[in-house]
Amino acid sequence: MSIGDIVNETSSRRGFLKRTALTAIAGGAVVACKESASPAGTTTSLAAKPAAASALSAAEAMDKMHEAGVKAFPAKTAGKGNQVLPPRIEKSVKIFELTAEKIQWETAPGQMVEAWAYNKQVPGPQIRVREGDRVRFILHNKLEQSTAVHFHGLELPNEVDGVPFITQPPVKPGASYTYEFAVPEGNHGSHMYHSHYNAAQQVGLGLLGAFLVEPKNPSAIERADVDYTLILNDGAHGYTFNGKSFPATEPLKAKTGQKLRIRFMNEGMMIHPMHLHGMHMTVIAKDGWAVPAPWKCDTLNVAPGERWDVIVNCKSPGVWAFHCHILPHAESDHGMFGMVTAVIVT
Amino acid sequence: MSIGDIVNETSSRRGFLKRTALTAIAGGAVVACKESASPAGTTTSLAAKPAAASALSAAEAMDKMHEAGVKAFPAKTAGKGNQVLPPRIEKSVKIFELTAEKIQWETAPGQMVEAWAYNKQVPGPQIRVREGDRVRFILHNKLEQSTAVHFHGLELPNEVDGVPFITQPPVKPGASYTYEFAVPEGNHGSHMYHSHYNAAQQVGLGLLGAFLVEPKNPSAIERADVDYTLILNDGAHGYTFNGKSFPATEPLKAKTGQKLRIRFMNEGMMIHPMHLHGMHMTVIAKDGWAVPAPWKCDTLNVAPGERWDVIVNCKSPGVWAFHCHILPHAESDHGMFGMVTAVIVT
Amino acid sequence: MSIGDIVNETSSRRGFLKRTALTAIAGGAVVACKESASPAGTTTSLAAKPAAASALSAAEAMDKMHEAGVKAFPAKTAGKGNQVLPPRIEKSVKIFELTAEKIQWETAPGQMVEAWAYNKQVPGPQIRVREGDRVRFILHNKLEQSTAVHFHGLELPNEVDGVPFITQPPVKPGASYTYEFAVPEGNHGSHMYHSHYNAAQQVGLGLLGAFLVEPKNPSAIERADVDYTLILNDGAHGYTFNGKSFPATEPLKAKTGQKLRIRFMNEGMMIHPMHLHGMHMTVIAKDGWAVPAPWKCDTLNVAPGERWDVIVNCKSPGVWAFHCHILPHAESDHGMFGMVTAVIVT
Repeated sequence: MSIGDIVNETSSRRGFLKRTALTAIAGGAVVACKESASPAGTTTSLAAKPAAASALSAAEAMDKMHEAGVKAFPAKTAGKGNQVLPPRIEKSVKIFELTAEKIQWETAPGQMVEAWAYNKQVPGPQIRVREGDRVRFILHNKLEQSTAVHFHGLELPNEVDGVPFITQPPVKPGASYTYEFAVPEGNHGSHMYHSHYNAAQQVGLGLLGAFLVEPKNPSAIERADVDYTLILNDGAHGYTFNGKSFPATEPLKAKTGQKLRIRFMNEGMMIHPMHLHGMHMTVIAKDGWAVPAPWKCDTLNVAPGERWDVIVNCKSPGVWAFHCHILPHAESDHGMFGMVTAVIVT
Repeated sequence: MSIGDIVNETSSRRGFLKRTALTAIAGGAVVACKESASPAGTTTSLAAKPAAASALSAAEAMDKMHEAGVKAFPAKTAGKGNQVLPPRIEKSVKIFELTAEKIQWETAPGQMVEAWAYNKQVPGPQIRVREGDRVRFILHNKLEQSTAVHFHGLELPNEVDGVPFITQPPVKPGASYTYEFAVPEGNHGSHMYHSHYNAAQQVGLGLLGAFLVEPKNPSAIERADVDYTLILNDGAHGYTFNGKSFPATEPLKAKTGQKLRIRFMNEGMMIHPMHLHGMHMTVIAKDGWAVPAPWKCDTLNVAPGERWDVIVNCKSPGVWAFHCHILPHAESDHGMFGMVTAVIVT
Repeated sequence: MSIGDIVNETSSRRGFLKRTALTAIAGGAVVACKESASPAGTTTSLAAKPAAASALSAAEAMDKMHEAGVKAFPAKTAGKGNQVLPPRIEKSVKIFELTAEKIQWETAPGQMVEAWAYNKQVPGPQIRVREGDRVRFILHNKLEQSTAVHFHGLELPNEVDGVPFITQPPVKPGASYTYEFAVPEGNHGSHMYHSHYNAAQQVGLGLLGAFLVEPKNPSAIERADVDYTLILNDGAHGYTFNGKSFPATEPLKAKTGQKLRIRFMNEGMMIHPMHLHGMHMTVIAKDGWAVPAPWKCDTLNVAPGERWDVIVNCKSPGVWAFHCHILPHAESDHGMFGMVTAVIVT
C-alpha cells in the first residue's frame, strides 16, 4: 500500500478530509486535484473586468508548470545521499571507509551536476555511532587535489581535527589517511563531517555528511518515532535538501500522533529559514547540545555550520509544505523547485 | 496638538532636553537643528589641515541631502498599508474579503512602484481575530495569474493550508475562493497571510499581510499600551517597513513610561537585524509562541518568515532611531532611506 | 619563549601530541608539517587510477599556496586596531579623544586599503569604562565629510545618541564635538561605537570600535582568565577580524584549563556564523544583556549590529581553527584568507 493510498484511506475513515482536493503526494501515487471538489472553497467567477485571452492562456500555462512540478513529487532520480553507512568492526573499533571522488549527480530529473562525493553519495553516507565508541575513519582520496576530513562539532584531540598544515598534512591525490578516536562522552547529538581543505569548493561540491552520535541515555524529549536528518545546501548544485532539488526531494513521513525529530544541518553559504506548515516545531538542541529550555517556532533560521534539532508532534494529517522561506530558494514562475519538500502525516 | 509640539512642550516642562537641538520629528512638525545649540556638544574648528574648498562644498551638499531626508520624516505618501480590516459578521462567523489586484503604490514621495496588493494596501489589511473565532476569508483574484492564500503560522486543517495542487486548486484569474476555519485555541500571537502561488514574485510584489490572533487570556508580559506591527520587506519595492521607505515610514509613538509591543514580521528575502537606539527590547514571543524565558537585546535579527514579539519599556523621552543594521538597507551618501524609522517617546 | 615553543614543550611533556605533525602557529614560530609523522594517520597510495602528472602538479601547487598561508600565520602587518585607549581623567571625568581621519591600512601582508579610522586604528581604539563612570568623548573630524558618533547599545539620554539632524548637528569637516554622559547602571557589557552619518560608507571604511562597560559586580559566569573582543567586518576592507585578514589575524591564546571570554561584534553587512573547532562555546550574553539561561554551541550566527559574549573552557590543548563558516569568507583555492584565526591552547 502506497502512502498515497494510506492518505486516502485515512481521509475516508476519519471523514476529516472527505471533501478535499488534497493531492496525495507520496510513494509515487498522485491524485489529481479536482477544482469542483475544492475544500472549504467555492470557486465562482468575478464579474469585474475579465482578463484578456492572452493573459489567461499565460496563466493557464503557468498553472500547468506548477501542477506538473507538484504531481512529479517525489520524483525519482539516480542516487540517494545520506544513507547510513554500517561500519565493519575489528577488535571493538568501528571502521568507516570514505572514498572521495568525482561523480555525476542527479539533483532533479535530468539535472546532472558534477559532484565531489564521499562513497558516490551527496550528502556523503550518514555516520551513526554512540558516545564512547572507538571509531576509525579511512579516507581514500581519488580526487585530483588534496583533501582532509574535519569532524564538525566533535570535541576531539587536536591531532584528528582535520585541518591541513595545522593538525595534519594534506591527503594527496591517490593517498589514504586514517583518523582514529574515541567518540567523546557528553558530546552526542547532530554533528557533521566535511572537507576542510579548499573547503569553499570541496564542500560546495558535496564533500560533506551527517555525523550522528547517539547518547548512552537519551532524554525523554529527544526520543522520537521518526528520526530525519535534513542537510541544507546552496552551492554549485543549486538549492538542495539532502542533495536533491524539488520535486526530487524526499518527503518526511509520519503517522498521526507520532513524534518526528528533524535534525537540520546547513552545509551551504546562506541562511535558510525553514518553515513548516500546519504544525510547530519544538527546538530541543543546538549543535548537538540540549537547549536549556525548549522553545517553539514554525520558522527556524539555520545558518551555515549550524545544526538544530526539533521535534514535531504530528497531530494533524495531511501533506504539509515544508520549505525554505527565502522564497526565491523555493519557487519561481515555473513552479516550486529547490528547497521544498513536505511532511506527510497519514 | 502635533507630536512635534508635544516633544517641545515635554522638553520645556522637564527641562530634560532644554539645550538640545533635537529635531522634533512627528506629525509634520519639524524644528530645525541649530548648530549653535548643540546638546552636550561644543563645536569648534580644528587647526589642522583644512579641507579644500571643493571638498567642503561636497560635504555641505551631502549634509543638505541628509538633512532634507530627516526633515521630511514622516513624509506623506498616497496609501497606507496594514490597516485593521473590520470583519462583517454573519451567524457568528467573521467574514473578511480580500481582493488581489495590481495597483500603483507610493513607497516614498514620488517613488511609484507596481504592487500586487490585497484591498489596495501594501502590506495587505491587518487581520485581528481571537482564539476560537470562526472566520471566513473570501479571496477575489483580479490578477492576471492564479493565486492562493496561505495562513502562515496558523495550525489549520490541511484543506485550508493554501498551497495550490497540494491542498487546493489554484484560484484562477477572475475567480473567487473561500477559506473557512476556526482559529485554533492555543495558537494565538503574531502570524501572517500571504500568497503561496508563484510566491517569490507574488509576495515580493505585495500579496502579504499580518494575521494577529488575540489570546483569550493574555499574559501580563504581553499586555502593552501601544501595539505595533512592523512588516519588513526587501523585494521589488526596495527596503520597506509596512510598505514604505524612509522618510515615508511611520514613527512608533509612545509616552514616557508606556509599554510598547512591536511585532516584527519578515516577508522579504533577507535577514534584517533591527536595531533600536537608546532602549532595549525584551523578546517575549517567537512565531506567536511565548519564549520560555524572555531575553533582552537592542538588535534583533529577523529572518524571512519569522515573527518576533518584543516589549520596549519606553523609559526615555526622545526621537530614537530604529533601523535595520545592515547599513546599506538604511543609508547611502544621499542620506537615510529604506529601513529607517523612529520610536518617539514624549 | 614563543607560544610555538610552549606548544612543543607542552606536547612533549604530556605526550599528548608527541607523534603529531602539529604546525605550531604562534609568536612567529612555525614548525613544518611532516607527512611521515602524520598523527593517527598513515599515508598510503591508492592503487586505483593515478591522477595525471599535470593534475598532480596543480595539486602540489595548490598545497604550496595553502601551506604558505598557514605558515605565515600570524603574519606581521603595519597597524593594530582595537587597542585599549587609556582615558585622561579630569575632575573624575574619563576623557577620550577620537580623531576621525583617512589613513592607509594593511589588512594582510602587502594588502593596503583606504580606511577611515579613529586614532589611526581599524577597528578604532577599544573603550573600557565602568558602570556609573562619567565619560567625555571629544570627536575631531579630519575627514572631508561630516560625521558623528553613535554609542551602540548604551542607553543614553537622547541628546548624546549621535544621529545628525535628529539628536545633534553633523560634525563638519575640521570641526570637533563633545559627548558627555554617565555610563548607565545596569547597562554593562559589550557595546560598540561607530559613525551614524553616511554610515554605510563610513562604518564600512572603518569608523567603528568596541565600547566595553565593566559591571560593578561581575557575575561568576562572566569572569574569565582571557577576555578577547572580536569585531567581524566584511566591507570595503574584505572579510576581517579586528581589521585584519588571515594570515594577519591575531590568534586567541589561553592555557589549558583557562576560561576564555570572546565578545563577538558584527560591524559588517552580512551574517557570520563563527565556528570554533574542538571546544564548544557557552553563550552568556546578547547585546550586553545576560541571557536568562546560558546555552552551548560550536557555531554562533552573529548578525550585523549584534554582540554575543561566550565562554570557552579551554580544556583541550592545540591549535584550534576558528572561522566564519560561510566558507567563501574563509577559504579559496589559493588557501585560507579573510575570516580565519585560531584559538591556541597551550
